[in-house]
Amino acid sequence: MQTKKHLLGLENLASREIIQYLDLAEKFASVLERPIPFVPSLRGKTILTLFFEPSTRTQISFSIAAKRLSADVVNFSQSASSVKKGETIIDTAKNIEAMKVDGVVVRHSAPGAAKILSENLDAFVINAGDGGHEHPTQALLDLMTMRQACGKFKGLKVLIIGDIEHSRVARSNIFGLKTLGADVAVCGPPTLIPLGIEELGVDVFYNLDDVINNYDVAMALRIQLERQQGGLFPSLREYRTLYGLTRERVARMKQKGIIMHPGPTNRGVEIDPEVADSNKSVILKQVKNGVAIRMAVLFVHAGGKLG
Amino acid sequence: MQTKKHLLGLENLASREIIQYLDLAEKFASVLERPIPFVPSLRGKTILTLFFEPSTRTQISFSIAAKRLSADVVNFSQSASSVKKGETIIDTAKNIEAMKVDGVVVRHSAPGAAKILSENLDAFVINAGDGGHEHPTQALLDLMTMRQACGKFKGLKVLIIGDIEHSRVARSNIFGLKTLGADVAVCGPPTLIPLGIEELGVDVFYNLDDVINNYDVAMALRIQLERQQGGLFPSLREYRTLYGLTRERVARMKQKGIIMHPGPTNRGVEIDPEVADSNKSVILKQVKNGVAIRMAVLFVHAGGKLG
Amino acid sequence: MQTKKHLLGLENLASREIIQYLDLAEKFASVLERPIPFVPSLRGKTILTLFFEPSTRTQISFSIAAKRLSADVVNFSQSASSVKKGETIIDTAKNIEAMKVDGVVVRHSAPGAAKILSENLDAFVINAGDGGHEHPTQALLDLMTMRQACGKFKGLKVLIIGDIEHSRVARSNIFGLKTLGADVAVCGPPTLIPLGIEELGVDVFYNLDDVINNYDVAMALRIQLERQQGGLFPSLREYRTLYGLTRERVARMKQKGIIMHPGPTNRGVEIDPEVADSNKSVILKQVKNGVAIRMAVLFVHAGGKLG
Repeated sequence: MQTKKHLLGLENLASREIIQYLDLAEKFASVLERPIPFVPSLRGKTILTLFFEPSTRTQISFSIAAKRLSADVVNFSQSASSVKKGETIIDTAKNIEAMKVDGVVVRHSAPGAAKILSENLDAFVINAGDGGHEHPTQALLDLMTMRQACGKFKGLKVLIIGDIEHSRVARSNIFGLKTLGADVAVCGPPTLIPLGIEELGVDVFYNLDDVINNYDVAMALRIQLERQQGGLFPSLREYRTLYGLTRERVARMKQKGIIMHPGPTNRGVEIDPEVADSNKSVILKQVKNGVAIRMAVLFVHAGGKLG
Repeated sequence: MQTKKHLLGLENLASREIIQYLDLAEKFASVLERPIPFVPSLRGKTILTLFFEPSTRTQISFSIAAKRLSADVVNFSQSASSVKKGETIIDTAKNIEAMKVDGVVVRHSAPGAAKILSENLDAFVINAGDGGHEHPTQALLDLMTMRQACGKFKGLKVLIIGDIEHSRVARSNIFGLKTLGADVAVCGPPTLIPLGIEELGVDVFYNLDDVINNYDVAMALRIQLERQQGGLFPSLREYRTLYGLTRERVARMKQKGIIMHPGPTNRGVEIDPEVADSNKSVILKQVKNGVAIRMAVLFVHAGGKLG
Repeated sequence: MQTKKHLLGLENLASREIIQYLDLAEKFASVLERPIPFVPSLRGKTILTLFFEPSTRTQISFSIAAKRLSADVVNFSQSASSVKKGETIIDTAKNIEAMKVDGVVVRHSAPGAAKILSENLDAFVINAGDGGHEHPTQALLDLMTMRQACGKFKGLKVLIIGDIEHSRVARSNIFGLKTLGADVAVCGPPTLIPLGIEELGVDVFYNLDDVINNYDVAMALRIQLERQQGGLFPSLREYRTLYGLTRERVARMKQKGIIMHPGPTNRGVEIDPEVADSNKSVILKQVKNGVAIRMAVLFVHAGGKLG
């Protein structure tokens, strides 16, 4: 089933490949409902999670996924790392690979870090976020969640809201959704919409109130509070007023429309607490699907066998 | 056997409930003496230790306890956390729960943090210390150690010494000991004894030398060195002179009297090294019992079955 | 087979003892090539890695080794430690031992730290580096790698290059190599060669170009960049010019000569990138052998049984 050795992004995946991940993840989601939610598929395999940027939930999600598959997991994060000693990322990885690691899950602040690793290792590499470039497993779990809630991708209308400029989540979702035939738009302050984004085949809007009623999915992105100092948006209060998913705004969505967020949320900024906890919200479903998607991804790239 | 879903404190536990934990912990203590000190009771369960305050020994103790029961353990501490990103404790927990965690062991600097979690999660919650409020597993292991050394609680005379004001260990011990019929007193500098503590049914003393000879158990609490800046006690030297468990002072205790300390000790401040290492000291027994108590607590709340 | 309870250094090991570790490590190296690279030898044993200095690769190497032997591993590093609370190293260890740990792997910045621990614990102690004193498992993996590449120790000519003064790796290698009959020399700036080093039976050189052509093994040590502030060497550029393993210099080595480095490397300082990646380099083999050596060491000291 595996057609590529590494998973670096969704940009170059075919529709068929994406759907294979999603279908397999549904199988694993049902494994997770069992009293003993483990399968022996990757017994004897060792997976390294190599996080140069801290991310509790993503690292735990991959760890749990690997353990559910009976793999051995070694977690590595920067604080305990020899990165401080001036070692390069490739050196670190090669050294750890020499300890007989089968796969590396990497997060790094530099776009392309996962690709560089993949060109220098025998182990398979899963990109868990490389700067503003891609975050493929996040997009896959988003796609899984959309398919569960909405049933199809062809013609599905998805609106991604907020800091598109710096968002690897937005990019990976756009690549995947366009490949699957969805109708994608982005909406946010002009300072946070990258120039030329239309070339990816998405519509661009600056006024959320004008368009939110047309979409099946409203995906709010996390505002990085530190961007404010850069003058990219005026104030958190104003951001909420213009782009926040407030109760009033969400009430104008389609009846079956859903709310998504990759987490962690800034409650009261890009999303109001009562919206995050409402029955339109599938945020916790996204997190839950994250484990199933990561099981599917690790399974495929580690060459696991079902059965 | 389980009568409550969560373990938030000893304040509202009945005598029978406390004794059940202790009896079960004795069973697990004998498991720990086996060549292969594991039981399969919680196979397939996942326990999350969620520590917003660092505490090596408590987190390791819970981890080892969970592993001895064959549970899967995910450790989370603040340094690697998304707390820095402004996420609330409830958000963090809900997200991690969406990954299918069965139980959460939480430590937090805010009194009531464990209760708030328990009201927002389906998973069972074990309080591993919430500010100055309660630390129930520490008190249970203390009670287990007292019962082993002294044989009974009815009429047992226990003196808790030091910073009562800020001590969740003191509070949990007082609740448990009073429920079990012990005779409890506290002793320390007036600035470190909370107003109204007598209402919990304890005696209050300010002069340790006057009373230490009357007690079966002398439990020294850890002095937080940073309190000194607040002017709550004059100097470490004077603290030791007035309230330290020195060799001379301990020599005046009952022949079968024992010395306890929740650790880590400030040697030469609240306890002298030769006292901590003497045959009156049960400090390392406390640590050892900690694993057995935490096995009992996890077992009960995870709905394990003996046999 | 075990003749000593602890492994504190190579200084007092007999030739026969060192060879036993190496032979056993070769057995485990072949285990590591199996599809399921695990043996059940230490099932039910708990190993604590207690790192007061951060070292990703050494701690991961010991963790993987212990897991391959089916031991339970508890990792502890200073950042999450109660060391900050003023606890002594012995207290920490005793407390953790009370949780029924079978063995402790310790790294500490103080020479003798492992010895102090070993005198105060029932658990076996493996020194994973104590200040400038010894780092026995690093030297054992170096010896294993030299034996694989060169076939023998008697008369093997080994040159250790760089900061000998502060290097526990150099000391442990010198002890082991001399015991096994090798011919050892050190070479570096006079400021970084300890006075009286000749008493260990090694030759001392200050000019690398004069001697490198005579040696079978050139082992470059890591330059601690912070030493430069102390004025111990003039500049990184000059260090490389005089003592770096450059392509030109290495080209003058014996045809079968090998290049070693304990890692992490400062590429372009003590070793040039193209040398580190050349076919003379056995650096990644060292890392790989590290897991096998640590399996052998844990196996022997935990009293494991082969077969």
